[in-house]
Parts: sequence; C-alpha cells; structure tokens
Amino acid sequence: MRTLIISSILKGELMMSMNVMDAAVMNKPLDIEIQKVPVPTPKDDEALVKVYCIGVCGSDVHYYEHGRIGRYVVEKPIILGHELAGEVVAVGAGVSNVAIGDRVAVEPGVACGRCEYCKSGRYNLCPDVVFMATPPVDGAWAEYVAVRSDFLFKLPDEISFEQGALLEPLSVGLHAMNRAKVTPADRLLVTGLGPIGLLAIQAAKVFGVSEIYATDVVPFRQELAKEMGVTAVIDPMKEDVQARIAELTSGKGVTVIVETSGNGRAIADAVRTVKRGGRIVLVGMPAASEIPVDVNAIIDAEVDVLGLFRYANTYPGAIQALSQSSVDIEKVITHKYALRDTKEAVEMARTQKDTSIKIMIYPNK
Amino acid sequence: MRTLIISSILKGELMMSMNVMDAAVMNKPLDIEIQKVPVPTPKDDEALVKVYCIGVCGSDVHYYEHGRIGRYVVEKPIILGHELAGEVVAVGAGVSNVAIGDRVAVEPGVACGRCEYCKSGRYNLCPDVVFMATPPVDGAWAEYVAVRSDFLFKLPDEISFEQGALLEPLSVGLHAMNRAKVTPADRLLVTGLGPIGLLAIQAAKVFGVSEIYATDVVPFRQELAKEMGVTAVIDPMKEDVQARIAELTSGKGVTVIVETSGNGRAIADAVRTVKRGGRIVLVGMPAASEIPVDVNAIIDAEVDVLGLFRYANTYPGAIQALSQSSVDIEKVITHKYALRDTKEAVEMARTQKDTSIKIMIYPNK
Amino acid sequence: MRTLIISSILKGELMMSMNVMDAAVMNKPLDIEIQKVPVPTPKDDEALVKVYCIGVCGSDVHYYEHGRIGRYVVEKPIILGHELAGEVVAVGAGVSNVAIGDRVAVEPGVACGRCEYCKSGRYNLCPDVVFMATPPVDGAWAEYVAVRSDFLFKLPDEISFEQGALLEPLSVGLHAMNRAKVTPADRLLVTGLGPIGLLAIQAAKVFGVSEIYATDVVPFRQELAKEMGVTAVIDPMKEDVQARIAELTSGKGVTVIVETSGNGRAIADAVRTVKRGGRIVLVGMPAASEIPVDVNAIIDAEVDVLGLFRYANTYPGAIQALSQSSVDIEKVITHKYALRDTKEAVEMARTQKDTSIKIMIYPNK
Amino acid sequence: MRTLIISSILKGELMMSMNVMDAAVMNKPLDIEIQKVPVPTPKDDEALVKVYCIGVCGSDVHYYEHGRIGRYVVEKPIILGHELAGEVVAVGAGVSNVAIGDRVAVEPGVACGRCEYCKSGRYNLCPDVVFMATPPVDGAWAEYVAVRSDFLFKLPDEISFEQGALLEPLSVGLHAMNRAKVTPADRLLVTGLGPIGLLAIQAAKVFGVSEIYATDVVPFRQELAKEMGVTAVIDPMKEDVQARIAELTSGKGVTVIVETSGNGRAIADAVRTVKRGGRIVLVGMPAASEIPVDVNAIIDAEVDVLGLFRYANTYPGAIQALSQSSVDIEKVITHKYALRDTKEAVEMARTQKDTSIKIMIYPNK
Repeated sequence: MRTLIISSILKGELMMSMNVMDAAVMNKPLDIEIQKVPVPTPKDDEALVKVYCIGVCGSDVHYYEHGRIGRYVVEKPIILGHELAGEVVAVGAGVSNVAIGDRVAVEPGVACGRCEYCKSGRYNLCPDVVFMATPPVDGAWAEYVAVRSDFLFKLPDEISFEQGALLEPLSVGLHAMNRAKVTPADRLLVTGLGPIGLLAIQAAKVFGVSEIYATDVVPFRQELAKEMGVTAVIDPMKEDVQARIAELTSGKGVTVIVETSGNGRAIADAVRTVKRGGRIVLVGMPAASEIPVDVNAIIDAEVDVLGLFRYANTYPGAIQALSQSSVDIEKVITHKYALRDTKEAVEMARTQKDTSIKIMIYPNK
Repeated sequence: MRTLIISSILKGELMMSMNVMDAAVMNKPLDIEIQKVPVPTPKDDEALVKVYCIGVCGSDVHYYEHGRIGRYVVEKPIILGHELAGEVVAVGAGVSNVAIGDRVAVEPGVACGRCEYCKSGRYNLCPDVVFMATPPVDGAWAEYVAVRSDFLFKLPDEISFEQGALLEPLSVGLHAMNRAKVTPADRLLVTGLGPIGLLAIQAAKVFGVSEIYATDVVPFRQELAKEMGVTAVIDPMKEDVQARIAELTSGKGVTVIVETSGNGRAIADAVRTVKRGGRIVLVGMPAASEIPVDVNAIIDAEVDVLGLFRYANTYPGAIQALSQSSVDIEKVITHKYALRDTKEAVEMARTQKDTSIKIMIYPNK
Repeated sequence: MRTLIISSILKGELMMSMNVMDAAVMNKPLDIEIQKVPVPTPKDDEALVKVYCIGVCGSDVHYYEHGRIGRYVVEKPIILGHELAGEVVAVGAGVSNVAIGDRVAVEPGVACGRCEYCKSGRYNLCPDVVFMATPPVDGAWAEYVAVRSDFLFKLPDEISFEQGALLEPLSVGLHAMNRAKVTPADRLLVTGLGPIGLLAIQAAKVFGVSEIYATDVVPFRQELAKEMGVTAVIDPMKEDVQARIAELTSGKGVTVIVETSGNGRAIADAVRTVKRGGRIVLVGMPAASEIPVDVNAIIDAEVDVLGLFRYANTYPGAIQALSQSSVDIEKVITHKYALRDTKEAVEMARTQKDTSIKIMIYPNK
Repeated sequence: MRTLIISSILKGELMMSMNVMDAAVMNKPLDIEIQKVPVPTPKDDEALVKVYCIGVCGSDVHYYEHGRIGRYVVEKPIILGHELAGEVVAVGAGVSNVAIGDRVAVEPGVACGRCEYCKSGRYNLCPDVVFMATPPVDGAWAEYVAVRSDFLFKLPDEISFEQGALLEPLSVGLHAMNRAKVTPADRLLVTGLGPIGLLAIQAAKVFGVSEIYATDVVPFRQELAKEMGVTAVIDPMKEDVQARIAELTSGKGVTVIVETSGNGRAIADAVRTVKRGGRIVLVGMPAASEIPVDVNAIIDAEVDVLGLFRYANTYPGAIQALSQSSVDIEKVITHKYALRDTKEAVEMARTQKDTSIKIMIYPNK
C-alpha cells in the first residue's frame, strides 16, 4: 500500500481537495494560456514540488515559436519550462532523500538508470530519459510538479530558489568544464553571451579559472560579461577574434573555447583560434544543418572538439560550490513574471534578445 | 673533447675515409636523383645509423608532386623519407642507450624537450621539433643518417627492420588508440585503407579490439583489410555506411571511428555514423580548406572529435607489443626498391594507388 | 496487469505447476544440503534464468567455512553462488533486452541506478546493491534464479555457458585493467594465481598486454599460468621477486602489478617492485586487519595504489572481446559437479587449493 | 662562440669583476657559514638569477640536522635552499624566454627532457633530474644562481617575489590537485598543517574547492588554517577524525585527503576516513620504514592511494591563477632573515615548529 503524505494542512492549502492547479499550457506555437490542470500525484519514488520559480530557456522559446526542435515535435498541448526550484510538499512512500518542507532544485531529466549510458556515468545520453518540456513530456510552468526524488537536490539556506533554478543552465557550463577537464591553468574563451554563455563564464570561475575571454555582438551582454569579471570582451563584428586573443594573451592563446552561440562563423573561428592541443566544447546548436569547418586545423593543432549534450552529475557539486562562493549567478536574471504572464515572459525572451538574458517565472505568486 | 667511435673496421667499410654516401635528393618537384653527399657526423648526443630500409610516405609523395604541404614549402634540394630502421655504426660521446651494432628503429621527429608541450607529454606538438623530410630538414633516403639517440629504439631479434621502419606509420594508429582511449570493449570503424588506415587496423588489434570495420573504394585495399582480419569491409560508393554499420553491429554501432581518408564525405559521414557518446579521430587531411560538418550531430550525440598530429611515446610500447604479437604489420608492404630506384618507387606510390600500399626502399642494397 | 510469459510448454517442463526447485542451501557453516525451494517468480523487470552452470567462488567457500566475510554475516540459511550463465525461460512484462530461449550471462550484483555512485558510472560502489550470495541475499546454486533483466547479457553462439559464468571472476581482472588504464605498452605482474589471478592474466591478454609475469608458490598454479602464456612465473619462496623482475625485464621493471593473493608479504613487495610511476591494483583481501606498507616507497616512486571492489560495466565488452579471441578462459576450470554434489564441490575448493582452481556446478544436470 | 650579456652597468654592480658572492655553505650537519664562492657562469641555455628571496624547506632542515634524506647523503659542503624567486641579471646566448631585468620564479629541478618520464609528461620522475639542494647538487642560499632558462618563469607585477618563491611548495599542493583530479565538487581533508599542508589548502582554493577540512595538533597552525578559510579544523589528539568528518559533512564524507604530516596514525586514519571511491594523496614522508595500513579498507572502498613526488608543469598555471586570485599564499611566511643569518633561520625552523611556518631568506639585503 503506498502512502502519500500531504503537507496541505501545514501549508494551509486545500490542494488535494481541489486537485487542480494553474499551468501555462502551450496549445500550439505562439499560443500559451493559463489552464486548470490536475495536480500531479507523486508515485512511490517521487516527490511533489511546489514550484517557486522557473526560467524561460531558449528551447522553450524555440518550441513556442517553431513547434519543434529537430526530431522533437510538439503534437499536442504541452506545458513547457524545466529550470526550476521549489519546495517539497508531498513525498511518495519510497522517498527518503528529501522531506516535506525541503527547499530543492529540480534536475529536469529523469534517466532510466539501467541502460549502458546510465551505467557508465553518462546518463545525459540515456535514450529513455524523460526530460521536462521535451515533447511529449510536460515541463513545469505550473504550480506543482512531481519528480523522481533522486533528481531533487536539497538547497542549503545560502542558496536562493533563483540560484536553485539556475543550476539547470549553469549545469551546461559545469558539464563543459568537466568535458574539457578545465583547471585553473587554462585560459578560456566563451563565444556567445546568452544565458548559457554567461553561466559558462560563471562555471569557469567556479572551477578557479581566472583568465576568461568572451565574444558577443550585443552591448548589453558584453557589459554583463564585464560585470561578471571576464578579462576582456571581444566584438566579433568589429575585431578579428583570433588576432585579438593573440594580442590579449601575449601570444599564449586560449586553451579552451566554449562555443555557445551556435553561430557558424563562431564555430569555424573557434577551430582556428584555440591554442595548439586545445579543446573546444560545442554547446550552441546552429540553425544550419552543416557548418564548414577547417578540418586540417583540427588535425594540425591536434584539437579536441567535444560535443556537449545537457549535463550529468552536476547538481550536488554545484550546490556545494555555490554555497561558499563569491560567484553570483543571479546576475543573469533580467526579468521576473508571474505564471499568468507566461506568454508575455516568453514573448520578451523571443523578441528582446538584446536586453533580456534570463527571465524567471514565479508560478505561486 | 668529444669522442666519436666508428665501427668502420668492424664493419669492413672505409666509410669515414670516403666521407660521402649516396642519397636520393629531390632537386625540385618530380626531380629526384641519386647524389653523393657527405656522411653526417653524429654530435655528442647522436648516433649514426646505417639505413637498412625506409618507406615512402604519402607526405613524401606530396612533396615530390607539389613541392609543399600547407605551410611547409620545399625551397631548396631536400632528401625525403622518414620511416626507417637500420643499424648503429657510430655513436657520439654522450650516447649510452644504444651501441654500435644495435638494430634500431628511428623515430624521425626530434623534439626540443623543453617547451610546454614537451614537458607535458605531448612532444608531437613541439613547435621546435626537427622532423625528417619536412622542409627544410632532410630525411633519410640515404645510406646513413645521424639521429639524436633518445629517438632511437633497439629492436629485439623478433622484430625485422621492415617492422622497425613501419613503426612510424603504425605509430599514427597507436596514437589514435591512445587519443581515443580505445579498449577491447570498443567497436571500431577505420575509414580509408591506405597505409595509415591499414596500420590503424593493426594498431586496434594490438589494443585487443576484435570488432573492426573498414571502408574503402579500392578492391585491392579491401582485400588486404580482409586478410588482416577485419570484421567487414564496406564500399562507400556501393553501400550506405551508416546503414551498413547499423546492420553489421545489430544496431549497436561503432564507438570509435578513425578517419584516415581525408575525404570530405567520409568525414561528414563519420559524425553521423559514430555511436552516441562515441569518439572520432581525424587523421586524414582533406584537400579542401573547409569541410561541411553536421555540428548538431556532434552536439546531440555528445561526440568527441579528436584531431591527430603525428604521435608521441609510441615506439617502446609498440616494440614490446609486436615482439610477442601475432599481428603482422608487414602485410602492408607491397613493393621494394633499391635506393638508386627511389624515383621509380615514388612514381609507383604516386600513380599506382590502387595496387600499392607501402613501398620500401633499401639504401644499402 | 503484469504478464508473465512462461516457456514451460516449449521447454516441456511443468515448472510452474510444481513451483519448486532444487537448491543447495547452506543452513550454517559447513552444512550444505539440497532442499526444495520455491521457483522465484520474476517481477516485471526481471527474467527467470535456468542455471546451466555456476562457479564456486572463494567468497562462497569463506562463507561456508566461517559464516561471515567482514561485515557480512550469515544469520539464516542462504543459497550461495554468483558466477553463472543459463537460459532465459520466463520474462516479466517490462523486459525487452532478453527473450525466452536466450543464452545469457548473469551479472550478479543489481545496483540501484539512482545513487551518486550509480549515476557516476561506479555502480559497483552502490550502497544499495543487491548482490547474490552476500548475506542476506540468496545466490544461485539452484535450478532457477530471477534477475533484473538489465543485468543479463546475451551470449553469442561462440561463447559457452562456462565462459559466460566465468565472466564474473574475469570481470575482476577486466576492472583491474580499466582501473589501471592498462594498454599494450604496459608490463604486468600478477601476484597470486588463484582463479582471480589467472583470470587477471587472461584479462591482460584481452587488453593486448604481451609481457606478463606472475608469482605463486603452488606448482600446479605456476604450470597453469605458463600454459596461459605468461612470460615467466616466479616462486616468491624461492626467488627474490624484485630482483627477478629486474632481471627478466632487463631493468625496465613492471608498470602495473595486480595483487590477488591477499598475502601481506606480496602487498608489501608490490610497493617496492613496481616501476617508478607505476600502478598497483589491490584485489586480494588480506586476513590481517593491517599490513605494514613502505609508504615512503609509494611517495618516492609516485605510485598509484588502487583498491578494487568487484567491477562495473565489464560484461558487454568482455562478451564482444571473447567471442573473437584466442584467449581461452575455460582453462581455469578444473572440476565439475552436479548440484546434488555441491557440498563436495565446496569441500574440494576448501581443502584442495593446490590442485583445484575453478570448480563448476551444473544445477540442471 | 657563446655570448654572455651582463647587466652589470645597468645594475651598477661590478659583479663579474669581483666574480665572487656570498653563499650559506653547510660544511657538515649543524654547521652553516657564509662563505665567498664564485658567481656561477650561466651556460648558453641558462640565465643568472639574482636571488631576491628563498625559503627554508623541511628538507633543508632535515639535511642540516641529519646530513641525509634516504638515499641522498651530504658528503661534502653544500649550499641548500630551492624555493626562490629573483631577477635575471645575465643570460646565455641561447636564451630567449627570459631577459635581463625580468622578475622570475625558479623551478628548482632541471629534468633531462629525454627520458621516458620526461617525454610522457612526468618529468618529476626523471632519474637524471638535477634538483637544487639535493646532494651533491647545490641550492641557492646565495646571492646568485644559474638556472636552465626553461625552468624560469616570468612573474607579472601582481606577483611578489615572495609569492614567486612560494610557488615551489605551493606546486606540491597543485600537483596533488592534479594527481587527484580535484574539482569544485570535491570535499577535501588536509592532514598536517606545516607549510605543505597550508599551501595544499591554498592550492585547493585555487582549484575552486570550497569545502576544506584540516587536521593538526598545533594551535598556531590550526589558527592559520582558519584564517585561510578552511571549513573546520580538527585536532586529532582531541577528536576522532573519522567521526568528526562524518558529523561536519552530514555523513557525506570527504572525497579527497591530502596527507602531508607523514604521521603513521594520520596515514592509517586516512584510509578509513575517506569516502567510498575517494582518493588519498600521500605527500608527507613518514620516519618509519613501514606504516600499518588497513588494506581491506582500501579494497572495500575502492580507494585510490596516490603517492606524490614533487610536481610537474605547475608553474605557468600557478602564476596565471595567482595573478588574479584572492588566495593569499604569503600568509604562510612567519619569519624573514638576511643571508648572513641563515643558520639562525634554519635553527628557527628546526626548533620552533609550533610558531614558525615558512621562513624566508633574503640573500641580497
């Protein structure tokens, strides 16, 4: 017999009696509306999380605009959103790692735990992963979400809910550091200063990297990178990145490039810019199906070009590191919305790329 | 005062009194002639090697045909050739690791030992490397060559001079195995079955890999690969490589691709063919300055694309492994020539790609 | 509603109607008897395996003799045995990777898939692993056993059931190769030639290692190692291991030592014998709670001393490698028994260590 | 013809005309006196460094007290000291990486660059290394020292000479981080808070580690560790380290232990304290030839026990990281002396272990 312990009285909410909640449902591209949907019932190994805040990701915007990303197609109404933190309000009978009242970050991709990828530590490549807001799986632009409890991570008091939600995009940067085996002896270039690029800078700082360069064409983003303490920002429309990096590093070059722009030119440049024996982590997905790449440069300089797909095993270390750190990842949050204004939030993200970075939605405010 | 011990009496050769030797000098592209040149005098840390046999490499042919490879330009007469083994006939005063009479393989790139690359174990990336047959450095299509002794490796009786010479191109394959951290649990695809591709197959076998696939369009090469025991050969002009690999591996795919063809299509295919989380080692340098690559596939499958430049630290292990192994690398030798016929040997390599693989020159016969 | 498909008709066995099977139950130390016990019913994610053969492991013998190994204590009757292969005769509704009739090897430790160790690829360290024949979990000295299907691995026709069962102890050796990142450039010393030591030799051969030394005091084991093709065997009671290794390797030394004896002297010697910068993998558990170790030698030679606990991710690669390999792991099998003679088999293992290596039990013969 | 460019006029010193300098010569144990010795003449590939400051290392004190460390025996007068920074005042003809007037840190072990260790990136294990202040090689408790220029590293203005000198003991900590592949996700315990232990804490902070525990019995050292920002200090004489770590980490444990005390009890405790799957780096050399170690714990928890011998490839990255960092390594300097007071400085280090950490000597003041 499974037991579901509900903190409804504690919270003063008659949640379960009502059994419905607000959610931002995307019926079809460009059409998001707030609907009443059933509150999910956590299974034995799940917890119910009351969502405190949840970000708008580039992928959310892409689904909103185009209804698909590659092989993932929105074929029926879907709830988007997968960057979140909240409070545990109910737990299944088999849950022991979190308890009602815990503040938690949610890792939004639940892997099977049994395939060869999961067993070898690369669960981000699990073919059976259930990833929030990836059709047909719902995300969490909603008041509540049920999550398998091993993908919930307790937040200490020093970590805000906003930081907890940002662990998701930050994890991409941290995974890039792990993939490229970055140490403080490296010199980094981050190309593209959207949320992923800016948080990759922060991830690098968490890893002790002190010499970090960045490129972007948008002044607002350039400024933000400077505020975050990068060594220098380069505008690839105004300067030759390769020459400028050589100049800034006194010819030593950058040992690692994290490419987050998805821009074909940036990708092509990366191959020629990275130092001999260096590493390039490809994060930003280009619109074009093929990008012309100087393969001889990869060979001649014995470069590692490392694809990056999501992340794995980043949350516990990130929480530990951030709880003591001077790195302030909340700097990327530029706008905040209530759940009812989700469409407006997404439109902001879609149309105001020059002034917005990370937009946060608060479903329970 | 430096001491040079000459084995002339022992060898019954009045080498030093004559002080000249035959060498195949390339005066300009397409023009190789045998000339008398001075026998090199080994420095304190060098040994003089009487060349027993030395291969014709694709790079030799390229210099012969075009007078340049990328940034390396032949501007004055040069002796080519860098895949060799021979016998030590003189040693400098400071040499202790080899002695007169030793049969040795020669690693042809002498690194500085002091730069950051050398110090961190990647001496193949040393900017000050002196590499045989790379303009303006002479190679060893000659009777004798002087080499810094730490790049000479004693051959046990079980290893023939031919095998010793082939350690050079084999090292590329071994370095590919090291770069991709190949183990017997991997399944390999080698694209391109020139000498490097065929020896990469042998390198994989040395590493215990048992499931090896290969692609090439030339029947002679396909046959040779089969004789070497590959699991299956695919003709990319007749079959869809990706589909065929899926079929041959029952859907499991290949975990590592070693691309040696330099063919743009093969490179592009590799990205789509390798298993999720797999590794691609790029070895073959394409003629085109840019190759269209499906960057999204690299990202989505979190692939490692690893450039490969020459090799490092391969000789001692290769000698050890081959001396006990059933792997027969001499299978790649299809033709043998005397030094006086060097031009003919190179022409054979240049014009008969469908019937020749590795051509060996014997300077002292 | 879960579905259980039984192959009883196909197999001509009225298994489920009877619903009982023979098992070798250890009531208490030194007391094993054949009892009728219920045939396990596979859960949705499990398959029922008809055990073809199953080995006697040193740990089985230890439980039989002492009733405990460290913190694991036999407190009630238990079925031992965990090295097995057999045939799938029933599958739960959720099983897709194996089917009735498949010949399979069984990996006997079922990890949780959700803890930090499982998620990071080290599921052998999972604190919640359910490992066969580790009190209070039953093993498989029985006609049938139910196993979570992701720990079953299909055997191709080339792999015998015996080899399938031996994958378990072989996996320890393979895990040692992975832990020490062994390549064909290494030179190995395996200390102790029980089943684990002899199979570590085979694992090294699978990894392409050609220069393998071994130590043991028992002539029968020494002979078996020689038959397996080791370079040389050393008797530590008659020769100084360190001096002999130096002699045999012309001073080059061994780069990796796999210590399987658990002998305090062998452990202490390993630290002094391994080459500078080398690696020692500790496998054999000593009886003494503390072993005197020359810590200065570990520091001065910058040695890696690597503990080894079971194995992870070894089965698929092992099956692939062995199916093409000339390495014959069945050489370690010295005795075979029917299930009814299990006590005799265990007594043989316990008392005849000088003449027996791996003893195999056939529950369905 | 070699050229030696002397900056004597620039510096206003008639160094070469005098050709002698002050050095602290240890005639025999406990006997150090200031003597006039020849100023070294730099070879073609060397530079002459005017020593600004140089530390007293535990090994210096050990030679002073006992006349030997293990196999290294002081058999004739020797100049000790190897932790230094200074200014380049002359360069050999072949030197291009540093110039007269450069402020430099000196890496005191000059490796051969040609052996298998050097070639594979582990030059700290080079059998032919020439290491300052290791008999019979002189160190640099002197006004000038000549050093092969590839072991000199330019200091930017932000790095003081003192920091430059401390790069040497800091490098031990950095090498420990590299050996244990430490990332910000780790939790560290540093046992022993002498200079090496305290600087290992700083190295960990450079690597972004935020959760660092430390043990020592000396209150002064405990305080210093706290000032450096460790999470907590444990006194192993007053508390059970294993229990205290469990408590402080809420049962999560430490993933890495850096053992710098050389204390047998600390080494034995480390094995039982480190988290399952963790790593122990052994740095402190115990006086006893053998330490009793719980080998079963190493095996059962699959621990990596990693010996550490000096360091390699740490200087450039350390300079880069420190030049931007808030980590203040100068905190370990407790006393400063002029060269003429070297004996007093060493006596201080020898006798006042409870109140001194790093003692710095200034040869040119």
